[in-house]
Amino acid sequence: MTIDRALHRPVPPGNTIGILGGGQLGRMLALAAARLGLKTHIYSDEADAPAFQVATTHTHAAYDDGASLCDFAAVCDAITFEFENVPSATIALLGREKPANPNARALEVAQERYAEKTFIAGLGMKTAAFARADDLEEARVALELIGAPAILKSRRLGYDGKGQARVGTLDDLPGAIASLKGAPAILERFVDFAFEASVIAARGGDGSFAAYDPSENLHARHILRRSTVPARLSEVQIREAQGIARTIAELLGYVGVLCVELFVTKDGALLVNEIAPRVHNSGHWTLEACATSQFEQHIRAIAGWPLADPLRHSNAIMENIIGEEARDWLARASCGGALHLYGKSEIRAGRKMGHVTQLSLKSGRHPDG
Amino acid sequence: MTIDRALHRPVPPGNTIGILGGGQLGRMLALAAARLGLKTHIYSDEADAPAFQVATTHTHAAYDDGASLCDFAAVCDAITFEFENVPSATIALLGREKPANPNARALEVAQERYAEKTFIAGLGMKTAAFARADDLEEARVALELIGAPAILKSRRLGYDGKGQARVGTLDDLPGAIASLKGAPAILERFVDFAFEASVIAARGGDGSFAAYDPSENLHARHILRRSTVPARLSEVQIREAQGIARTIAELLGYVGVLCVELFVTKDGALLVNEIAPRVHNSGHWTLEACATSQFEQHIRAIAGWPLADPLRHSNAIMENIIGEEARDWLARASCGGALHLYGKSEIRAGRKMGHVTQLSLKSGRHPDG
Repeated sequence: MTIDRALHRPVPPGNTIGILGGGQLGRMLALAAARLGLKTHIYSDEADAPAFQVATTHTHAAYDDGASLCDFAAVCDAITFEFENVPSATIALLGREKPANPNARALEVAQERYAEKTFIAGLGMKTAAFARADDLEEARVALELIGAPAILKSRRLGYDGKGQARVGTLDDLPGAIASLKGAPAILERFVDFAFEASVIAARGGDGSFAAYDPSENLHARHILRRSTVPARLSEVQIREAQGIARTIAELLGYVGVLCVELFVTKDGALLVNEIAPRVHNSGHWTLEACATSQFEQHIRAIAGWPLADPLRHSNAIMENIIGEEARDWLARASCGGALHLYGKSEIRAGRKMGHVTQLSLKSGRHPDG
Repeated sequence: MTIDRALHRPVPPGNTIGILGGGQLGRMLALAAARLGLKTHIYSDEADAPAFQVATTHTHAAYDDGASLCDFAAVCDAITFEFENVPSATIALLGREKPANPNARALEVAQERYAEKTFIAGLGMKTAAFARADDLEEARVALELIGAPAILKSRRLGYDGKGQARVGTLDDLPGAIASLKGAPAILERFVDFAFEASVIAARGGDGSFAAYDPSENLHARHILRRSTVPARLSEVQIREAQGIARTIAELLGYVGVLCVELFVTKDGALLVNEIAPRVHNSGHWTLEACATSQFEQHIRAIAGWPLADPLRHSNAIMENIIGEEARDWLARASCGGALHLYGKSEIRAGRKMGHVTQLSLKSGRHPDG
């Protein structure tokens, strides 16, 4: 775990933050950077990336286009990404030119479910039982080891439930393997959790650490539907969740915001489900319920600025606006809460189009109060 | 007072809001529009306008350049401005092409101190005593009428104390008149106020109205130093201040956010000092202390969207970062509060470079709580 000394020179206002990825997370990162007086340069392989609309400059090119990446690095003062499917080689390349965080190692671990689970289990943290299942034979052995029901997941490029198949019995295995079309896979024991939670935390280049209160997350069809803060967690569980995030961040030499998704079992254990090496949908509530959002916190971390206080001043419920629900934008704008729309020109089934956060009174300590 | 029917068709997400003026107010309006999924087009006569950095598109041209204004109107779906020194003829011109608000009449009244004071006094509201003082002879008569001490102010283009001279005795008049270099002027009786306050309110095209809690404002060298909410006002005074804003907005057929600056006298009277037909520095605290800021509220109003609840969930103190103070950005980033820097490349004495808002606990009703 080495600390890049370059990070100790904070990027001054007027300089440029480069962001790989032009979706809503890149867009909200760009808006947060702007608030701090920083310029932004979005790099995306989509011609019509929503984040282009709010960035100072943008580049439309592939994530493995070396020449475009070099040009991008040349005009940026610090670089980050909004999604974990950026090639880790790209981050490694950019990181040789300018501070690029989170680092390639963190990205690699989070990109590959087997490496991720192995890393987490190696830290002595609880996860669902898991095993490699790259072909039918390996999957059979894995299922015997783990027990049913289980879930077969592609090891890479999975999000919002894509590349997953439930395995109830041995007979489901051939179909499940076939559905992944030869992609390397991992079999995970199905966890009959009480609820899902996540913790958003940030680590600075100087080793500083700040965690938000965990949220309780509800998914529908594998897509986040709602995050609620506070979650139904005790103070001890909250500290455990934040401690898990801290350990992971420290062991990865992580700089930036990360999200650790957790299963909370009926007996109160916290199982690590996955690590997202980026700002996360389950942290959007921080935009209104905290003086500093996850987006600003991430920009602060990767720009070498001091982390801000993650204290929450209100309770919050964040609901996603998904697919066709976005047609009701006017009704949503009329019924209270903080509305966010992501500037996506096309509505598609399951596509995250926006979100709404409702605040309510929190008792207890208040920022600066 | 006619309501433009065009305003009843709300501008949908993905469409473009045109903003005249590219300073920090235009920048924060653009960021608020982006949150709602709207594109932005900034029009400024400054080549390096800070708002260009966050806008989808921009035009660099003069405010009286008819061809550029027509091109601008053609690609915008609703138009507004960030500062009151835009020529009212420009707004009238744009308003013939697309909904442009606040309207030219409101702008004219706010641009000219004598027209403004006459309008306010005509509504039966209290102001400092005032009279025209375009030349030395008129100023002498005015001073006799009003009494000393008084302040001679240019009628147009004044802000942050520019174009003002204090008149203690008759002997000060020639120098004061000379300092205005022949600009038409108004003489106002000096008000020995207890403190200054302002109320930020919004009116929609459908006649809806929403006012924020008034702030208490401290100026130093004619520049806003600090706004504090709540102000030292009784509930009755708060309602009076909000009522003043409502009456003014209704009589002007106003659409958008306006600010009414008030003097609060030692015996508790509210004197209208001036109207700003735009979002205002004394409302920046709404970014963190309310679920919907003045910037989003303004975009909602001029885009024909429903107004949001202006409820405040926290107390707030907003401090400006002025001129050389911006060099301390790193220290400011370290000491709590929500930091905003405006992306201005050059520090100049008296220039508003950013602000910081500190929140603290408010007891009482809470948004959606």
